[in-house]
Amino acid sequence: MPTSENKLLKLLQNRYSARNPQLKKGIGDDAAVIHPRNAAEFWVVTSDMLVETVDFNREWTVPRMLGRKSIAINLSDLAAMGATPRFYTVSLATPAEVPDRWIIEFHDGLTEKGALFGADLIGGDLSRSEKHVVISITAVGESLNRKVVYRSGGSAGDVLYVTGELGCSAAGLKLLREGLGRSRNRFAAKALRAHRDPDPRCDAGLWLAQSGFVSCMMDLSDGLSMDLPRLCAASGVGAEIRVSNLPVFAKASLWGCDPVVLALNGGEDFELLFAVRGSRNGSFEKAYPATLPKITRIGVMTREAGKIMAVGPNEIRRRLAERGFDHFTSRKQ
Amino acid sequence: MPTSENKLLKLLQNRYSARNPQLKKGIGDDAAVIHPRNAAEFWVVTSDMLVETVDFNREWTVPRMLGRKSIAINLSDLAAMGATPRFYTVSLATPAEVPDRWIIEFHDGLTEKGALFGADLIGGDLSRSEKHVVISITAVGESLNRKVVYRSGGSAGDVLYVTGELGCSAAGLKLLREGLGRSRNRFAAKALRAHRDPDPRCDAGLWLAQSGFVSCMMDLSDGLSMDLPRLCAASGVGAEIRVSNLPVFAKASLWGCDPVVLALNGGEDFELLFAVRGSRNGSFEKAYPATLPKITRIGVMTREAGKIMAVGPNEIRRRLAERGFDHFTSRKQ
Repeated sequence: MPTSENKLLKLLQNRYSARNPQLKKGIGDDAAVIHPRNAAEFWVVTSDMLVETVDFNREWTVPRMLGRKSIAINLSDLAAMGATPRFYTVSLATPAEVPDRWIIEFHDGLTEKGALFGADLIGGDLSRSEKHVVISITAVGESLNRKVVYRSGGSAGDVLYVTGELGCSAAGLKLLREGLGRSRNRFAAKALRAHRDPDPRCDAGLWLAQSGFVSCMMDLSDGLSMDLPRLCAASGVGAEIRVSNLPVFAKASLWGCDPVVLALNGGEDFELLFAVRGSRNGSFEKAYPATLPKITRIGVMTREAGKIMAVGPNEIRRRLAERGFDHFTSRKQ
Repeated sequence: MPTSENKLLKLLQNRYSARNPQLKKGIGDDAAVIHPRNAAEFWVVTSDMLVETVDFNREWTVPRMLGRKSIAINLSDLAAMGATPRFYTVSLATPAEVPDRWIIEFHDGLTEKGALFGADLIGGDLSRSEKHVVISITAVGESLNRKVVYRSGGSAGDVLYVTGELGCSAAGLKLLREGLGRSRNRFAAKALRAHRDPDPRCDAGLWLAQSGFVSCMMDLSDGLSMDLPRLCAASGVGAEIRVSNLPVFAKASLWGCDPVVLALNGGEDFELLFAVRGSRNGSFEKAYPATLPKITRIGVMTREAGKIMAVGPNEIRRRLAERGFDHFTSRKQ
């Protein structure tokens, strides 16, 4: 079995250390954090690569939508740090059969979605590839008042929350795999949109970081069952979630999916997963603005590092299996 | 014939405009320039993508060397702005047959070369690809005293210079293509090193930017005959170069190459091309430190925008043909 992405990342993280005092956080979070000398704010930098057939399928989308999704994924990483998007670069490799029109529409999608969240395209690179499209984006944001939320700030007793609904994007992917990408059913349309054109939770991330309530945060890109252990590992804690509390996408059952399975293991929700001190979660919930995406309490952080439990029907407690997406052990599209 | 990379970039540059006042320079130079609010320095951001079979051949190098070259290419873009390297992210896609060892050695090369120039790895992304390795790096540097040199500052009458020697990397590529990658001849070793493990001209770039002598600058990545027109286009001028003045790699003739052709059209020299006001070039040459890579006067900028002339043997003046590397019309490796 190949080494997991987690393991390899950990290895690289331990192998290289940065010593520049302007660096507040290097490898190992959703994004790196820099404090440019004398700058009013911290600057946050994140990079993501999308490879055709692994991360997307060119037949299942149009270039404009692919551009929109590509930038959304990166802005979601900024949101997870509580940072406000500002700038990004994009490097794009396309095989010779991809027409200029495709490249331009891709950039149109990228820039229109970026602009919605205040991010400007500032540069990049165009390259050729032999067969598949490859997209690499680096996004840069600002942490207002230098308030950044890391993955590592959680403690036992903190209450775990997620924004929005989980599993909706995975339901959309299932529809695409089954050739139902043109379905007009409104629930299908919602799932397809969640998969093709997700919205990063920038407003929520900013509010959560500024509020001072949040101890740790990350975005959900590979599925809760993969990402929750990452948050807990960074914070040196365990967790217990209540499956019945998960904000599932119930309509997934229309297409023969178990909504709970999708909520736990489906990737690319790009919702925020975060924690609030147990003593403060009441005041937090009162303060959280109704205009932001809904939040749901899904569990608590626990003392035993790395022990991630799920409480299911009839109060049965089980270890949560990591069944989300791993670039090195899964095939997705 | 496919649209050239130049044309497509120009189209994208004109299509999208950024309005953030913290952005000093967006698409269209070697790197973008940001002034974070209150920051002491400007920050410079550049991205480059390298695709196997187009930009490199995995058989012709070892992962450590490929890592070294990948970061060097990006640092060269920072050097071209006069910026000092600080941080970078790397996104890497590898096919399943590439072992973890390869990935680690690639990162080792990246970080050891980055460290030589003061740049720390701060994050990135690991991904799978079906067949080819793809590398995407974003590097961030600081412009000390906010002194940045753009491509656009040149005027007619400015004297053109290059650092180092031109065509050495192209000679190395030729040796690799002909299966002579293990040659022990010392000139071959020099050419192979120039191709596999180039040094970005960071020290020279910094000095040139701080000196105040330089009106415009870029790095030579696609060959002088491709890059000089870019510098001139950005500055709205033409140029006339003297072929006999070019600092060619004369030993290329040992392998049946014309050193002048390599100097004009060979890519990946990663030397700096820059201009100095005609009235100041004497004092500039006196001030330029002997400890930095040698510089050579190769010509002047002229009034007629876009007219790039080469003066050859017997004082014959010809238009310089663009025969360097274009990602969209050439095949390199």
